[in-house]
Amino acid sequence: MKNLIELHKEQFIEELIDFLKIPSISALSEHKEDVQKAAAWVAESLKTIGMENVEVIKTDGHPVVYGDWLHAEGKPTVLVYGHYDVQPADPIDLWETPPFQPVIRDGKVFARGATDDKGQLFLHIKALELLMKEHGALPVNVKFCIEGEEEVASPNLGPFIDQHQEKLSNDAVVISDTSFIDRDLPAICTSLRGALAMELTLKTANSDLHSGTYGGGVPNSIHALVQLLDSMRNEDGSIAVEGFYDGVPEPTPELRSEMAEIPFDEARTKEQLDLDALYGEEGFTFKERTGIRPTLEINGITGGFQGEGLKTIVPKEASAKISCRLVGEQDPQKVFEAVERHIEAHKPTGAKVALRQFIQANPVSIDSNHPMIQTAADAYEKVYGRRPLFPKEGGSIPIVEVFGRVLDSPVVLMGFGLPSENLHAPNEHFHLENFTKGMETVCEYLQSLGRK
Amino acid sequence: MKNLIELHKEQFIEELIDFLKIPSISALSEHKEDVQKAAAWVAESLKTIGMENVEVIKTDGHPVVYGDWLHAEGKPTVLVYGHYDVQPADPIDLWETPPFQPVIRDGKVFARGATDDKGQLFLHIKALELLMKEHGALPVNVKFCIEGEEEVASPNLGPFIDQHQEKLSNDAVVISDTSFIDRDLPAICTSLRGALAMELTLKTANSDLHSGTYGGGVPNSIHALVQLLDSMRNEDGSIAVEGFYDGVPEPTPELRSEMAEIPFDEARTKEQLDLDALYGEEGFTFKERTGIRPTLEINGITGGFQGEGLKTIVPKEASAKISCRLVGEQDPQKVFEAVERHIEAHKPTGAKVALRQFIQANPVSIDSNHPMIQTAADAYEKVYGRRPLFPKEGGSIPIVEVFGRVLDSPVVLMGFGLPSENLHAPNEHFHLENFTKGMETVCEYLQSLGRK
Repeated sequence: MKNLIELHKEQFIEELIDFLKIPSISALSEHKEDVQKAAAWVAESLKTIGMENVEVIKTDGHPVVYGDWLHAEGKPTVLVYGHYDVQPADPIDLWETPPFQPVIRDGKVFARGATDDKGQLFLHIKALELLMKEHGALPVNVKFCIEGEEEVASPNLGPFIDQHQEKLSNDAVVISDTSFIDRDLPAICTSLRGALAMELTLKTANSDLHSGTYGGGVPNSIHALVQLLDSMRNEDGSIAVEGFYDGVPEPTPELRSEMAEIPFDEARTKEQLDLDALYGEEGFTFKERTGIRPTLEINGITGGFQGEGLKTIVPKEASAKISCRLVGEQDPQKVFEAVERHIEAHKPTGAKVALRQFIQANPVSIDSNHPMIQTAADAYEKVYGRRPLFPKEGGSIPIVEVFGRVLDSPVVLMGFGLPSENLHAPNEHFHLENFTKGMETVCEYLQSLGRK
Repeated sequence: MKNLIELHKEQFIEELIDFLKIPSISALSEHKEDVQKAAAWVAESLKTIGMENVEVIKTDGHPVVYGDWLHAEGKPTVLVYGHYDVQPADPIDLWETPPFQPVIRDGKVFARGATDDKGQLFLHIKALELLMKEHGALPVNVKFCIEGEEEVASPNLGPFIDQHQEKLSNDAVVISDTSFIDRDLPAICTSLRGALAMELTLKTANSDLHSGTYGGGVPNSIHALVQLLDSMRNEDGSIAVEGFYDGVPEPTPELRSEMAEIPFDEARTKEQLDLDALYGEEGFTFKERTGIRPTLEINGITGGFQGEGLKTIVPKEASAKISCRLVGEQDPQKVFEAVERHIEAHKPTGAKVALRQFIQANPVSIDSNHPMIQTAADAYEKVYGRRPLFPKEGGSIPIVEVFGRVLDSPVVLMGFGLPSENLHAPNEHFHLENFTKGMETVCEYLQSLGRK
């Protein structure tokens, strides 16, 4: 299989570049057509490799692309999930080359969506093409379910899965949308944090006011907002919202020592990201803080005059985007309500506050001993020469919990990204070595499942 | 004179509308040509009314317009100061009619700059035109010094005055850029707060980071910024920056009772501005907080993702615009250094901070018993039927202190605006009744000075 990959590599990379050129940003309505275009592109590429029943299925948002090949009688069925949408590209001026003009440098392809998730998704499609070429058939039954709203928290995929349980039924859901621990240190992620995103808007007056005439005598929306936001965090880095930690499990000594074994190079991380210091909840390590502890982070803030120069106003309104990562038995809805209560209780004088909810996702925990996962680990070991670790990831893939719950499927998070690949940031890239080794690993995995 | 004003009123309003159509926003470089255009417009209108030696004089920024008429031998010389530049118009969507398409409604002209300061400046020019028409000469010597950078704190007018002391020498500087207490309750302002404007930028990393991968484990620039900003104010509304209050005089019982006499309708202010509450330094009234107490206000804040929807990042950078109003013997430079020290002492973990200074202006206090001011008060009394009050204004006109210090002139702040005229805010307007009564008052004042 390795030789076959080598033979077609250049062509596959050309095709990936073609895919990466489509600015399929799901969060921005002006890119709606691009998102549609990416869906059509995926559908076409599924047809090309011999997938059947390929459909671009409408939802209330961006469409789901489905396709299957179900002729491996008696063999297991694998559902491949991925997403063809990407994050917004801003701040655009920090990209060394334009986000939607893919460029290869030092064995990496640079483009928005390179690692998250177009590169990782496309390697599955190409792996199946190679298996088809080599054997005229696939070793297992395969279904694709590719969405276009992962970066906006999959609002329509949950209902879609609910409505198409039979169509999507499977023996394992395979997702490549996570990362290695480090180069040559593969990982199958076995837990994902849940998510909750909110927008807090605070108003004090019906108009911006002259800071000479009114300054010092009326509430200032930005002062009020910073006071309110600052009240949500304690000095020790913990979250001060009452009830926030309900359902958060105390990590067992076993888990803590397991996590301590996963390598983390603090000095290198600080240097790479130009951090003066790490910072987080007291009493926990970086791996714990970002993997098994919940967070509340301000993602954006805006208010008052932001142009060039100055404008001496008392601003009437300010707002902040806030998101939480949740773990264990934390319930997103209850956390939202706890934040609402906190805001009500800490509302500064003269502040009119509104809290809007964007998304919710439950935390997920996966048993690493499941045979579907252990077989995947075997495949990695064969290709990379090293058995993957089973880390607790800090990210959220909201739909993973739904796959597990609604379809009762084991979810195999076989990632091929690297943590340094700037996902959600400028200069996102994907190491082409993992594009090809990823294909090899997928081929190995499916063949191995077919032999069982 | 009243009849003459009545006769020409419509034409003068037409001309004012023409002036207001020029978007001479000094803070925005894209409006540089408009600012030049406004300067030329003012110069032209000075020539038209018979002013001599009219010049548009270059500076390192926007030009100063000068003109004089010096044929009233043995009579005092009045220097009229005003500004032809205006504030930015945003938020543009809150204007009922476009800011640079002046409209008259209910006896008011709506446009950016209507009251601040084009309307108030232009009434001086037109008053002189009428005096010339009526008498073929002016009762006093007059000089105009009209700048285009007042809204960006007059960075070049200070040096200009320094360099042109002889040219600008006078017996009184007359400025109409302040407000009545209320309709039919005129005021000659006798103190102005000083000003200090700053921009605080805080960085934590070299890139926005994925909040799933890094959230909870690295410093968040917005969390750090809100913590730092919140630390600058105490719960009682006072400023927590050590040394901030150095040089702030304790108000005497006399001053407090004098200020208490100036009417303030709290209920109406709250209703007009849709304020749930007033807010400020404990132990002081609204008039004191906005008139004789110093302030530190956040005018704008920005950081992280601000687009539609969400982006789950740990933002690398955030910034805030901050401005202070200063009183008494507060020294802007020392206050700046106190803020710098506060930031250094309260800097959150992992924060790299830069504080940039925009502008500085010293506080000003004017003796209301000066004959030049008392004569102006007589003129108001004659036209409005009521003697003006002498309030302590909360605003800053940075150049007033320079006029007093460098030219040793009494400064007569004879305002014709109303506090409700939305200066620096959307739907700025100017009451046309004060446009005409203002002309009458100015004519009365100059004639009276000429008789002495």
